[in-house]
Amino acid sequence: MAFSIRMNRLKASAIRAVQKRIASKPGVISFAAGLPDPTLFPLAELTAATAKLMETSGKAALQYGLTKGYGPLLNLLVQRMREKEGVDCGPENITVTTGSQQGLALAAMMLIDEGDVVIAENPSYLGGINACRPYGPEFVGVDTDDDGMVMEDLERVLRETPRAKMIYVIPNFQNPTGKAWTLERRKRFMELVARYDVMVVEDNPYGELRFKGEPLPCLKTMDTKGQVIYLGSFSKILSPGLRVAWLCASPEVAQLAERLKEGLDLQCNEFAQMQVAQYLQDYDIEAHIRKIQAAYKARCELMLAKIEAHFPASVQYTRPEGGMFVWLELPGGLDANALLDEALEAGVAYIPGESFYANEGQKNTIRMNFTMVNDQQISDGIALLGKVFQKHLC
Amino acid sequence: MAFSIRMNRLKASAIRAVQKRIASKPGVISFAAGLPDPTLFPLAELTAATAKLMETSGKAALQYGLTKGYGPLLNLLVQRMREKEGVDCGPENITVTTGSQQGLALAAMMLIDEGDVVIAENPSYLGGINACRPYGPEFVGVDTDDDGMVMEDLERVLRETPRAKMIYVIPNFQNPTGKAWTLERRKRFMELVARYDVMVVEDNPYGELRFKGEPLPCLKTMDTKGQVIYLGSFSKILSPGLRVAWLCASPEVAQLAERLKEGLDLQCNEFAQMQVAQYLQDYDIEAHIRKIQAAYKARCELMLAKIEAHFPASVQYTRPEGGMFVWLELPGGLDANALLDEALEAGVAYIPGESFYANEGQKNTIRMNFTMVNDQQISDGIALLGKVFQKHLC
Repeated sequence: MAFSIRMNRLKASAIRAVQKRIASKPGVISFAAGLPDPTLFPLAELTAATAKLMETSGKAALQYGLTKGYGPLLNLLVQRMREKEGVDCGPENITVTTGSQQGLALAAMMLIDEGDVVIAENPSYLGGINACRPYGPEFVGVDTDDDGMVMEDLERVLRETPRAKMIYVIPNFQNPTGKAWTLERRKRFMELVARYDVMVVEDNPYGELRFKGEPLPCLKTMDTKGQVIYLGSFSKILSPGLRVAWLCASPEVAQLAERLKEGLDLQCNEFAQMQVAQYLQDYDIEAHIRKIQAAYKARCELMLAKIEAHFPASVQYTRPEGGMFVWLELPGGLDANALLDEALEAGVAYIPGESFYANEGQKNTIRMNFTMVNDQQISDGIALLGKVFQKHLC
Repeated sequence: MAFSIRMNRLKASAIRAVQKRIASKPGVISFAAGLPDPTLFPLAELTAATAKLMETSGKAALQYGLTKGYGPLLNLLVQRMREKEGVDCGPENITVTTGSQQGLALAAMMLIDEGDVVIAENPSYLGGINACRPYGPEFVGVDTDDDGMVMEDLERVLRETPRAKMIYVIPNFQNPTGKAWTLERRKRFMELVARYDVMVVEDNPYGELRFKGEPLPCLKTMDTKGQVIYLGSFSKILSPGLRVAWLCASPEVAQLAERLKEGLDLQCNEFAQMQVAQYLQDYDIEAHIRKIQAAYKARCELMLAKIEAHFPASVQYTRPEGGMFVWLELPGGLDANALLDEALEAGVAYIPGESFYANEGQKNTIRMNFTMVNDQQISDGIALLGKVFQKHLC
């Protein structure tokens, strides 16, 4: 049987392959995760909200609903986008999605014809890149410095790439680097893209996980021409298992997304949407988010202190103000993928950073997660990893 | 902004447009629905199963899981496919999907390149047709008689259509006609398709809603060459709001589906998968299905009796042995879409059948739902509709 051309474009997840290697070494301290800490889920509150939902609206929660999303949740999302993000919007701008991953898929399907160009940060979230692959784009990576995407590079790429259709960015505590763009860079980015006929997908799963510094406005607040498709999610602030996320875009785009979604899965889980709405109505999610922020802040700071103490000075690293990841850059000659075997032997795991590039990746980079490890594991694991690095760098 | 070519291929749901017309006339008796009766949902059992789940495995239910599906649910699905459907399979054959709609989307994405041909029953489920549209196929409809798809027509189409990639069929109590294929026709169908390099998507949401006659084996049981992608769902036998469904196919196809799904929505709702698994473990879903069958049987029989009593003899109709729909065929000259205004005026609603054809549709057809109406509504509604028809046919 001949499958569609689309299927030749899929790429097996390199991260998954790495995770299989890690799983074969049980007992290692793993900085390879990409999950929120489940001990921080508001289990008691969600249990109560779910029980109440079953009692008051069980039949509706188990029945079909609308493709666009559960009405009261749409209104809560509008309120949230207005109050937390400062985005002027109404229900006509929102479509509920099955995780932000579906938002990425919808954007890709809406925008990309074969041979179009997707511009992404270099490195970037692999799931965002892979969501685009079936539709046959080329990828152009644009480097980021400490302030965000490098504008001179982006400008050159936009000028030279008439088929650029979509710019995929994660301006807050990006997966994998943990970097956040400065306000100045956000403004310059939006001024620049406004001069081109290109859409921006602003993926913001980590924005509310800021545990240091001042919150910065999202790109969507500076979107004067309806170019930004903003993706928000409850995965990192409430629960990923419920798969409740949303996109906020121009009414035209939100409606096209809805129509596409009808063919893709008809609608999101009605029960889960009502669970989230009930939780938001009955509990203080802001207080809950502050708890997550405090926990992740402590772990991140401990990780950075231990890195400072144990890693050779030639290992560079980001100092995130939020999110779930720290990014390491080893001196040029080292291959983090090859080193992983040694690390696993020493009892510690990470994700080689090479996997996070759309095209050729930097082999000397590493993604380190700090949300699925406790203090002891951070202290021990970083010390172990430091020894592995020392062997090659001293 | 230029959207992708894909977006020009989407077709606004004609059914949705009709439903808006109906919604503007509140108080009408509606045979236009496509929903299972929510008063039959096992609310108490699902409430208990959900509470138990929260208590014993809440954190896991709220956390990320695997793209392929929740392990214990996969095993329960394998058991179900073996015991209820007689399909010899293992977990390697299964991928959990967000409703069967996602199974349709995955199959379409896997198989269809622009210009390929999708063969479908004429009429067929609009959601199945629309799931294929973004990928640019042509559609060829093959008529069904009382025994199933007409084999002479299918054979001719297959012979004359080298680019036929996918045959989409609903052999049990099809939406919209309520027809089921005979065993003989199923066998001939599988013998015929085995001679061609074409895949079959067997959509079976209604198979377990058989309330009359003997259960017949699904096409998948006769699949000697791995050509059949079987789609099963809990939407009509447990709850559509939970969006838990599955596909059962060759290991190669199931794995490709999993990889595609990773880019589309990463995974199904973990909580819902565990809810369904918990329910299946703690309760007798077969007893529950028998309750649904009995209720739908009574309503269907009442509807058929009232049709017999009130409709002009020139109106033809199917006599379903399961499912949710009866199909009407009015004498040739009548346009069910035009008649709908009169029907709404008289206080009764239906879906004109024209919408269920991939290409040009038969204007004199009507889909009638019997699951969302009670006995009184059936009696009154059919009498009212009979009068509308009488006016044009006597």
